[in-house]
Amino acid sequence: MTYTDHTTEEINDAMQQAWKAFHVYRKCSLKQRAGFLRAIAKEIENLGDELLKVAGEETNLPEARLRGERARTMFQLTSYADACEKGDWLEARIDTAIPDKAPPKPDIRKMLVPLGPVVVFGAANFPFAYSTAGGDTATALAAGCPVIVKAHPAHAQTSELVAAAILKAAKDCVLPEGVFTHIHGASFEVGKALVTHQHTKAVGFTGSFTGGKQLFDWANQRKEPIPVFAEMSSINPVFLLPEKMKTAAAETAAMYAGSITLGVGQFCTNPGLIIGLEGKELETFRTTLGTEISKIAPGTMLHPGIFKNYRKKKDEALKQAGVELVAYSDAKPALNQGSPTIAAATGKTFLNNPLLHQEVFGPYSLIIGCKDMKEMLQVAIALEGQLTATLMATENDLRIHDNLVEAVKNICGRFILNSVPTGVEVCLSMQHGGPFPATTDSRFTSVGADGMKRFARPIAFQNWSNELLPDELKNENPLGIWRTVNGELSR
Amino acid sequence: MTYTDHTTEEINDAMQQAWKAFHVYRKCSLKQRAGFLRAIAKEIENLGDELLKVAGEETNLPEARLRGERARTMFQLTSYADACEKGDWLEARIDTAIPDKAPPKPDIRKMLVPLGPVVVFGAANFPFAYSTAGGDTATALAAGCPVIVKAHPAHAQTSELVAAAILKAAKDCVLPEGVFTHIHGASFEVGKALVTHQHTKAVGFTGSFTGGKQLFDWANQRKEPIPVFAEMSSINPVFLLPEKMKTAAAETAAMYAGSITLGVGQFCTNPGLIIGLEGKELETFRTTLGTEISKIAPGTMLHPGIFKNYRKKKDEALKQAGVELVAYSDAKPALNQGSPTIAAATGKTFLNNPLLHQEVFGPYSLIIGCKDMKEMLQVAIALEGQLTATLMATENDLRIHDNLVEAVKNICGRFILNSVPTGVEVCLSMQHGGPFPATTDSRFTSVGADGMKRFARPIAFQNWSNELLPDELKNENPLGIWRTVNGELSR
Repeated sequence: MTYTDHTTEEINDAMQQAWKAFHVYRKCSLKQRAGFLRAIAKEIENLGDELLKVAGEETNLPEARLRGERARTMFQLTSYADACEKGDWLEARIDTAIPDKAPPKPDIRKMLVPLGPVVVFGAANFPFAYSTAGGDTATALAAGCPVIVKAHPAHAQTSELVAAAILKAAKDCVLPEGVFTHIHGASFEVGKALVTHQHTKAVGFTGSFTGGKQLFDWANQRKEPIPVFAEMSSINPVFLLPEKMKTAAAETAAMYAGSITLGVGQFCTNPGLIIGLEGKELETFRTTLGTEISKIAPGTMLHPGIFKNYRKKKDEALKQAGVELVAYSDAKPALNQGSPTIAAATGKTFLNNPLLHQEVFGPYSLIIGCKDMKEMLQVAIALEGQLTATLMATENDLRIHDNLVEAVKNICGRFILNSVPTGVEVCLSMQHGGPFPATTDSRFTSVGADGMKRFARPIAFQNWSNELLPDELKNENPLGIWRTVNGELSR
Repeated sequence: MTYTDHTTEEINDAMQQAWKAFHVYRKCSLKQRAGFLRAIAKEIENLGDELLKVAGEETNLPEARLRGERARTMFQLTSYADACEKGDWLEARIDTAIPDKAPPKPDIRKMLVPLGPVVVFGAANFPFAYSTAGGDTATALAAGCPVIVKAHPAHAQTSELVAAAILKAAKDCVLPEGVFTHIHGASFEVGKALVTHQHTKAVGFTGSFTGGKQLFDWANQRKEPIPVFAEMSSINPVFLLPEKMKTAAAETAAMYAGSITLGVGQFCTNPGLIIGLEGKELETFRTTLGTEISKIAPGTMLHPGIFKNYRKKKDEALKQAGVELVAYSDAKPALNQGSPTIAAATGKTFLNNPLLHQEVFGPYSLIIGCKDMKEMLQVAIALEGQLTATLMATENDLRIHDNLVEAVKNICGRFILNSVPTGVEVCLSMQHGGPFPATTDSRFTSVGADGMKRFARPIAFQNWSNELLPDELKNENPLGIWRTVNGELSR
């Protein structure tokens, strides 16, 4: 099914409505916001198998995966609802007055308040969890911001179904019209109209570097620049350290064959770069990984555009001087199927060719053989910001190669030891955001309840009497939230 | 004394050195960083009256004010040292593994780590507290970032003295060369070279809108955009509500005469706009304020450039159609002295003339007479983002005019009731930062220990064993800091 793009006029009406809704919704209690999130989860459940069927047709994702992703989406909504209601995230701070200080110190109390309407651009690869009712929408609503979702054209009908569920939940919760709006738009103009509208106060995005960077630039060129949290591009480097490889080369290769090809490689945390030391251990790793990869069947990708892009980027990488094809799936790929592929190059080749630093979105990984640890360090330093970085290492490796450990830590948001980067837990300790170009602001996360902080700002109340303060800041702490009172946390 | 601008080459060398220092300094413990901040405070004290003398000559600020500002600067350093050491700000979160979950949930632990070298542009109006060893420098060093200060050309010698104190403290604390660097530069090129250098990872700025916006644009146009926290421009509106004015018009006017002229009006929280309802109460307010203002003597401004700019901006405002001069100081101003001045206009005039929304930096305020509360609401909505906003109101006023209260709250970072905006307490609950153009990112503050968060980003450690984790995240919590463990705060 195709949908007509919303016009600039319709978008303006929607933003006016969202702005109006903001003035009501931001006054809703934490409990009311949490109730809304839980009602959305319930309504998504009520869509039943019809939702899975439509999403399957639009994305080619298998039912089991979609079932899992739907469960994840509902868990996000309900766990962020719990976190929202708990109120720890409000960063409530109270400093009581000291009237006899010279000059007298006034009573000051601070907490986070919502920024305003948030525009969300969903991801192609997560039709539920990072789309219409996904992480950005859930955290923005929890923060007290109305949300305007631009449906991803590749799964617009899925988006339409989920949007209807959100709107029903909003109605049942007696929330103002405009607290949630669903916009269709395949064209450039729709995105631009949304990001540059005066009532838009923040943007959430998951997708390509080109797309995210464009939104970031538009947002910064506004008369009133607004924050953009764009999760864009990452090759999630994996460093194979020498002592670890002496005993675990084959085992690591087998584990990585699974990670590289999981979901046809269509994850933002896909390990697209594996760096080791030239020698017989790396040879073992390479051979084992090659053997495993050749046994893994190609899979249908999310949509023809993503497949075409995968083939193009992969072919481009393989054509570079010094890049060698190591292995690919034995099975012949059908239409729009991505074939698992492994390539290899030397450290020197990698250091001299920036194209090889770019993401190839799909089941592809490049093995880099460094001539020594100095070169491996150079590779780490040459890398751009990443969502994740992984070390396969023994304790000895970490101690001896401390410089490398520090350099790798410095470029990533999540730092993994002896595991794989795919699989992003939804929990408070998760960091899904890293130095540019992984995301546009490494100081925030798009997964976990801390994601709410992207869409809120502190406000300090000075000299307000207890009765006039918001409940979150009253002396008696009626909501029972954690607060820092005169320097000490309490509740 | 004048100093030669550093060359681009020298700046590059300094940034290379800062980058090298970053790799050492970020591994320093919270205790070591706190020790450094305390040593800086001590060294500033050791500069004795010589520092006050030089600063007085460069800024025309009276000795009592400079003495107070020096004490504030030292309090910032020592109180941020305490906050740094306490570690609450690290937002440590621990989610322990659940191996029997399907799929198994790994151990994930998150905390803030420093961004990298921070370039600081100090303020003209605070030669100590928002300059060389001021709030931005103190919070960036506490966060674990090396700092490069560009001296303000208007008090370059003061800056030189303070820089020497910081460098001595760094040496005594055995910190790497490059942890602090002092750069001179009156030209545009020096600022640009600093902000666009690849090793600069964040920028702190206090000053004019033009200056701050330029840095923000340069930072966003980089290949790797970096965060800029610029505190730029605010007219700090004050709303006089009707019931309050019935009994407190004269008293409020007397209080505001002091606030408007404090420090020759050279504070970023100076109340530059006062909005009331036309009628006899506003007439009383206006007459009393006028009488008080006429009695206040002009004061020498920070430097001739600031004086010239004050006169120009004030004259421009007074020339606008519908703007009436209410009162000015009876005393004739001497060279470079700013004369306290009050003007007035109607709500309609204000709404139709954006020039009147601009900051006039100095002892000036504009009284707006609205024809009704609807117009007052329109004025509130028409205002841009502000550092502070103030209501002079009774409880009844707040209840009846809830729409106005919400609209005003929405544009400010600090919301004051029945007091004045001048006077910025250094405490955790302070918010010194508001919606654009007050600052470039309303989600952060430049005053209070939360200012550290501007220069840090979260990193999640996944699957690391207890011994390999940083102390902040170890099971036994050796530093005794507050952490959220499996969803619950504890220490």
